[in-house]
Amino acid sequence: MNILLTGSAGFIGSHLTERLLAEGHHVIGVDNYLSGQPANTALFREHPRFRFIQADVSLGLPDPGVRLDFVLHFASPASPPHYQQHPVATLMVGAQGTQHALDLARAHGAAFLLASTSEVYGDPEVHPQPETYWGHVNPNGLRSCYDEAKRYAEALTMAYHRHYGVDTRIVRIFNTYGPRMRADDGRVVTNFIHQALAGQPLTVYGDGSQTRSFQYVSDLVRGIMALMDVPDPFPVNLGNPDEYTILQFAERIRDLIDPRLPIIHRPLPADDPRQRRPDITRARTLLGWSPQVSLQDGLARTVESFRAVGGQPERLVSARLDGH
Amino acid sequence: MNILLTGSAGFIGSHLTERLLAEGHHVIGVDNYLSGQPANTALFREHPRFRFIQADVSLGLPDPGVRLDFVLHFASPASPPHYQQHPVATLMVGAQGTQHALDLARAHGAAFLLASTSEVYGDPEVHPQPETYWGHVNPNGLRSCYDEAKRYAEALTMAYHRHYGVDTRIVRIFNTYGPRMRADDGRVVTNFIHQALAGQPLTVYGDGSQTRSFQYVSDLVRGIMALMDVPDPFPVNLGNPDEYTILQFAERIRDLIDPRLPIIHRPLPADDPRQRRPDITRARTLLGWSPQVSLQDGLARTVESFRAVGGQPERLVSARLDGH
Repeated sequence: MNILLTGSAGFIGSHLTERLLAEGHHVIGVDNYLSGQPANTALFREHPRFRFIQADVSLGLPDPGVRLDFVLHFASPASPPHYQQHPVATLMVGAQGTQHALDLARAHGAAFLLASTSEVYGDPEVHPQPETYWGHVNPNGLRSCYDEAKRYAEALTMAYHRHYGVDTRIVRIFNTYGPRMRADDGRVVTNFIHQALAGQPLTVYGDGSQTRSFQYVSDLVRGIMALMDVPDPFPVNLGNPDEYTILQFAERIRDLIDPRLPIIHRPLPADDPRQRRPDITRARTLLGWSPQVSLQDGLARTVESFRAVGGQPERLVSARLDGH
Repeated sequence: MNILLTGSAGFIGSHLTERLLAEGHHVIGVDNYLSGQPANTALFREHPRFRFIQADVSLGLPDPGVRLDFVLHFASPASPPHYQQHPVATLMVGAQGTQHALDLARAHGAAFLLASTSEVYGDPEVHPQPETYWGHVNPNGLRSCYDEAKRYAEALTMAYHRHYGVDTRIVRIFNTYGPRMRADDGRVVTNFIHQALAGQPLTVYGDGSQTRSFQYVSDLVRGIMALMDVPDPFPVNLGNPDEYTILQFAERIRDLIDPRLPIIHRPLPADDPRQRRPDITRARTLLGWSPQVSLQDGLARTVESFRAVGGQPERLVSARLDGH
């Protein structure tokens, strides 16, 4: 297939590109490098079936010159420090960016897949979260530039499906980690690994009792590939339901790297979700999908990849993780 | 002041124009007539301080040629039949439309006011709804093209306030009624009046136990004028907390027009909110505002205006009501 992928230079985009090329597809990557990394484009530059267009999908997409079969819209700042630094760009890539990608899919008769997020559930009052849960999001808070942009992107995608008949899919991505995360993305995984590798104390926000679930990036990519084969327009959660407190998580990473390091606490930011865990019943039944990589294995591979690049932020490439 | 008003040919826009002109302001009205009505523009065409630009704010705004003091963004389809017929245009006027209006305000150093809606509360689980309630909205439902567009518009407005320092206001408008509502807007008020004037049975969706609160349009306009004087960026509810069931409402209107008419029931549409009522504590304390027109008086004036135009839909002008 000919596949156009926005956000190709992001953390998830780079892993998705790798897998799509391995499956024999032609991939046209698009990124503006607002939060994506040129090093992630460089990984595939020599590949005969990869082509890259540097462009801001919020401003429009150039004609790709070939007939597209699929448009995957993964472009967006996705970590709180990035989207709070670029709130208007984050809102725009959810609205104008999603629309340009949908218009392209529609013009080509191609299928469309939106990378949405567990952030559409906000600070959930239902636990775990099934796709039918409507969420609990502050429309005016500091995180709203990301959360509301993604909710809008879902509504727009459904409008293109219902009104124009575009073959659309929506994946709600829960916290994901793995190699090529940006060390400066402000997420708990990267923060902990980076701090531990630098021999520094691990910083926990709040008392650390808030929980998160973490999926390894290869599990996510396998789920996205499965959803591309199933024409169902309603959102599908992809995440690992194994739940840990942030404090447990800090302890695991510390113990992998240096058990002597202290764990320190800082105040919890506003609107930080207390807990979030996917209900993956729908992904299991619709796609036959469930996570396969254990936290222990995934963390070991991630720490190893961080060690391999010397733990230097400037050599670690690209983040497009969901949540933090 | 020089004031640019998008949605000037809508129901609320037309009443707001009238009041702004009466206060001595210069008004530049903008409308694309998607749901607004040319007759509402014609009302002011001879006024020396009124100017009209036919334009789609979602595509951009022409330079108004004078320095603006205030931009009021009221453009949007707002009744369920209108926005469900134009879901993409509705989403766009919430995103691109709001952004063009915000960019204009920013360029002119003007203040900005967003017409938001009680629909951001969705099908609320808190009753009555204060502005601090985050809402309960289905991001994928048939109403999401309107609800999520307005939530996005609020998030974008706050981003322009926080990130660019624009002086912004957000009003959340609850159900409003009065003269110049479109007879075909599908709202309960217009439906009931129109049916009763035509001597037809009044149609209630569901058992009629769902509640609504209704404010008369002059109360709303007075609240908007008050908020224009108070530089507070957080949302303010404007609505009448007097709550009636839809069935009570049908009975009131029937009794005003023809007590012999029957009331019939039809199935409730999907995602129809069960109940909604504003908590107006904030408007009371911030603006010293509360509704003054009783339902009895407001309905009498509205029925009178419908009678005056002969109850003919084509002679009734423009709806921009919130909710239904």
